[in-house]
Amino acid sequence: MQRILVSTSRREQLVDITRRVAEAVAQLPLEDGVALVYCPHTTAGVAINEGYDPDVAGDATRWLSKRVPRDAGYAHAEGNSDAHIKAIITGNSQLVPVAGGSPALGRWQAIFLCEFDGPRERELWVTVTGR
Amino acid sequence: MQRILVSTSRREQLVDITRRVAEAVAQLPLEDGVALVYCPHTTAGVAINEGYDPDVAGDATRWLSKRVPRDAGYAHAEGNSDAHIKAIITGNSQLVPVAGGSPALGRWQAIFLCEFDGPRERELWVTVTGR
Amino acid sequence: MQRILVSTSRREQLVDITRRVAEAVAQLPLEDGVALVYCPHTTAGVAINEGYDPDVAGDATRWLSKRVPRDAGYAHAEGNSDAHIKAIITGNSQLVPVAGGSPALGRWQAIFLCEFDGPRERELWVTVTGR
Repeated sequence: MQRILVSTSRREQLVDITRRVAEAVAQLPLEDGVALVYCPHTTAGVAINEGYDPDVAGDATRWLSKRVPRDAGYAHAEGNSDAHIKAIITGNSQLVPVAGGSPALGRWQAIFLCEFDGPRERELWVTVTGR
Repeated sequence: MQRILVSTSRREQLVDITRRVAEAVAQLPLEDGVALVYCPHTTAGVAINEGYDPDVAGDATRWLSKRVPRDAGYAHAEGNSDAHIKAIITGNSQLVPVAGGSPALGRWQAIFLCEFDGPRERELWVTVTGR
Repeated sequence: MQRILVSTSRREQLVDITRRVAEAVAQLPLEDGVALVYCPHTTAGVAINEGYDPDVAGDATRWLSKRVPRDAGYAHAEGNSDAHIKAIITGNSQLVPVAGGSPALGRWQAIFLCEFDGPRERELWVTVTGR
């Protein structure tokens, strides 16, 4: 298992970690198969989507902010229920095809750490699922 | 493959199944790797999020109820389209890192069966994905 | 790895690809385990939900259209930010249990390509994750 450490800088942001995942995958005993990128946090997630135009990640963050408001009479006393809900929507892990020891993503795809309660120090776990 | 049976008690609730998944994983031929928790139903899902304060699961359930209303002019005649949509949002499976034969979750993480059309008898399948 | 090609016919639609996935899984070196259905695109996703009544897929598509409007002051200049956001909500891959060389889904489950920016030619990758 490989660990990736990411320092986020805002409360909500999608951080492109594609290069970091590629470096971690290169350290795994996996030539061809599937790697798991797993977020052990509960107010952050992982998503795979367009990485070419950063406006896409910005639009996704803004849609989530608007549709899952920060204050909406939540019961959870810590005041970050919105972040938990956003992480459930994105999911807390993603699978990445691996070929020849490197991530084999679609042409426009990037892997994002989805920060919803930053800034914080986050970690991601990258591990082998097959084969 | 291990089967977990869960009786839900309300139409919508997140049931913490972390201990049940740990018992199932202990029965799998998997020391270190990744387990799949798969929900074979179409009006229930699986999510990983905070299990320490039950208000988090309650807030998530309430957000979904509000944003995916039970009645909204759906075409599906069974009257539970909202439950299908909620299950698509959470996802119907989750991956769990396994170390030393036990789930290796993040500190605050728990695994939830997400019931959206209960109460019902539900089952989950827990299986090996690697390695 | 097996490739599935799908021609979509509308901007937004859920296309049942269960039979196509079964044909691809039959070609994989996998008798019992888990297959990954991976969408390499960024404006389409993959979901598993009810395939018996097509109204369910229609209701899900309509809910997404309403809640993630096509025009909402997005920054991304291509005008399809809604499609990227919808794909993040559904997810861009799903895992399918395999038994005896065939997908072992729940009774009412089907696998869908979720098109959000069609019509287009799409491809899906089907690959082994275990064991």
